[in-house]
Amino acid sequence: MTPIHAPDVLISEVGPRDGLQSVSGTMSTAAKCLWIDALAAAGLREIEVASFVPPKLLPQMADAAQVVQHALRHTHITVMALVPNLRGAETALRSGARKITLPISASQAHCLANVRKTREDMVAELRAVVALRDAIAPGVPVEAAISTAFGCTLQGQVPEDDVLRLAVACAEAGASDVGLSDTTGMGNPAQTTRLFKRLFQEIGERTGAAHMHNTRGLGLANCLAAYEVGVRTFDSSLGGLGGCPYAPGASGNVVTEDLVFMFEAMGVSTGIDWPTLMAAREPLKAGLPGETLYGMTPEAGLPKGWRG
Amino acid sequence: MTPIHAPDVLISEVGPRDGLQSVSGTMSTAAKCLWIDALAAAGLREIEVASFVPPKLLPQMADAAQVVQHALRHTHITVMALVPNLRGAETALRSGARKITLPISASQAHCLANVRKTREDMVAELRAVVALRDAIAPGVPVEAAISTAFGCTLQGQVPEDDVLRLAVACAEAGASDVGLSDTTGMGNPAQTTRLFKRLFQEIGERTGAAHMHNTRGLGLANCLAAYEVGVRTFDSSLGGLGGCPYAPGASGNVVTEDLVFMFEAMGVSTGIDWPTLMAAREPLKAGLPGETLYGMTPEAGLPKGWRG
Repeated sequence: MTPIHAPDVLISEVGPRDGLQSVSGTMSTAAKCLWIDALAAAGLREIEVASFVPPKLLPQMADAAQVVQHALRHTHITVMALVPNLRGAETALRSGARKITLPISASQAHCLANVRKTREDMVAELRAVVALRDAIAPGVPVEAAISTAFGCTLQGQVPEDDVLRLAVACAEAGASDVGLSDTTGMGNPAQTTRLFKRLFQEIGERTGAAHMHNTRGLGLANCLAAYEVGVRTFDSSLGGLGGCPYAPGASGNVVTEDLVFMFEAMGVSTGIDWPTLMAAREPLKAGLPGETLYGMTPEAGLPKGWRG
Repeated sequence: MTPIHAPDVLISEVGPRDGLQSVSGTMSTAAKCLWIDALAAAGLREIEVASFVPPKLLPQMADAAQVVQHALRHTHITVMALVPNLRGAETALRSGARKITLPISASQAHCLANVRKTREDMVAELRAVVALRDAIAPGVPVEAAISTAFGCTLQGQVPEDDVLRLAVACAEAGASDVGLSDTTGMGNPAQTTRLFKRLFQEIGERTGAAHMHNTRGLGLANCLAAYEVGVRTFDSSLGGLGGCPYAPGASGNVVTEDLVFMFEAMGVSTGIDWPTLMAAREPLKAGLPGETLYGMTPEAGLPKGWRG
């Protein structure tokens, strides 16, 4: 799968942040570093390695700065970190993160529950983060990730106009790119098509990643729909880490391996090497003993005659 | 989900044939009948209820005629049966099957292994089946199902030209419609788009069902791709019966429940009632104790605010 030109899509691996944040076990700093090294070796070009939240809220992320520090040795990797607020952004930027992402919920109910701020306050926070970035780390992209963009377990349906209005506000506040997250696994392909089409119309090239979940089995179909309207960055997690992607109530991240297989089978290059990606499951298993890893293509193997 | 007009797509339930044929246990005739009744109650309009193969080859299907006989009480259902040859077709037609389907492999290797005939001989068999149908059961559609259309575990890749050539030959031999089956779960959305587009170009309205598998997790994405180029009939099996759809080597049928959820969520009507479909899992469980049923939407439940 070695590309002879720039890959067609960017798979943004969120396992070390989104995945680890959602499991009960805690991975040691050393194990995280080994896992990130393996992901980088497989050809992943963007890895969300940590979340800069107060350690008392998420002890699993207490080593965020150390993990970022380690990941920076991979000079070709966009070392990404989640920040919930200005304070987290400052620590992340001073740690050397090459991209930061701020989650802002389209659902007011979820926004208040998640970060105890309104959507409007979060847009103001984003503006402050962008100003800080300009001051201390110019050139580092700041992503706004619109969570619950496809529905909310608290408020139910989320009006598409709310999603678009918020996305535009984020772009106006200076976000480098604005992604849409199906936090709750409620999205469907028609909705994915509509939302990303409108997002492209509104903010053009600042349209960011599709972060889809597989809670109801539609993860890959939704990624396909997003791809077809022009999305080229997709979040996923190795082994579907972050709770069983085939069960309810779980994070249900799209499985990196299956996503890579889908695109590569379609002739859409990912820049990722399959055997090395499979090998990257080993340090994950070793670092989180007992955690179930998912992925149907890893179980079934590549089809007979693959690229043969 | 009660439609006020004809549903947009036809979900063809293959569990009682394809599913039961692939599991180790045998379901009693009475249990099959209860299950078929429950499927009919849920709004499924086409059900593949049996396979007319020699009982010594498939003891699970020894009661095919009885099962068809029972299913016929559902006057609004297309009671469908698989037939491997002319002899099976005659029994099926005399039993009253309302549609029959003859599998023909695009892979010569698989065709020989599956029915011990070449593809060309199978097209001749199809022609004989059509003539028989004209003689004893005029008006009963005869489907040709092109298996291994997306790849073969014996020969590897299957040239798309082979698939199309065979499909056209089947249409010329008198098939009412010609479907494409991803028997081995090797298909991808780009390939699905290409094959069905070409099939529509070649045989127009005789383009039949997409029978996709979920072996590598791409089942729903492939169904979406087929839908987008005009396919309106989709094969699937309740609970993914027919081996674990999330594991290798298994039949991996697309899960009816997840497929129905995908379409209904997209606003594409299926004519299927969700609670009654969920209830149809009970007679399946009762008739095959210990068999694992799959389906992510059944586990996660419908999203909050669904049609609310």
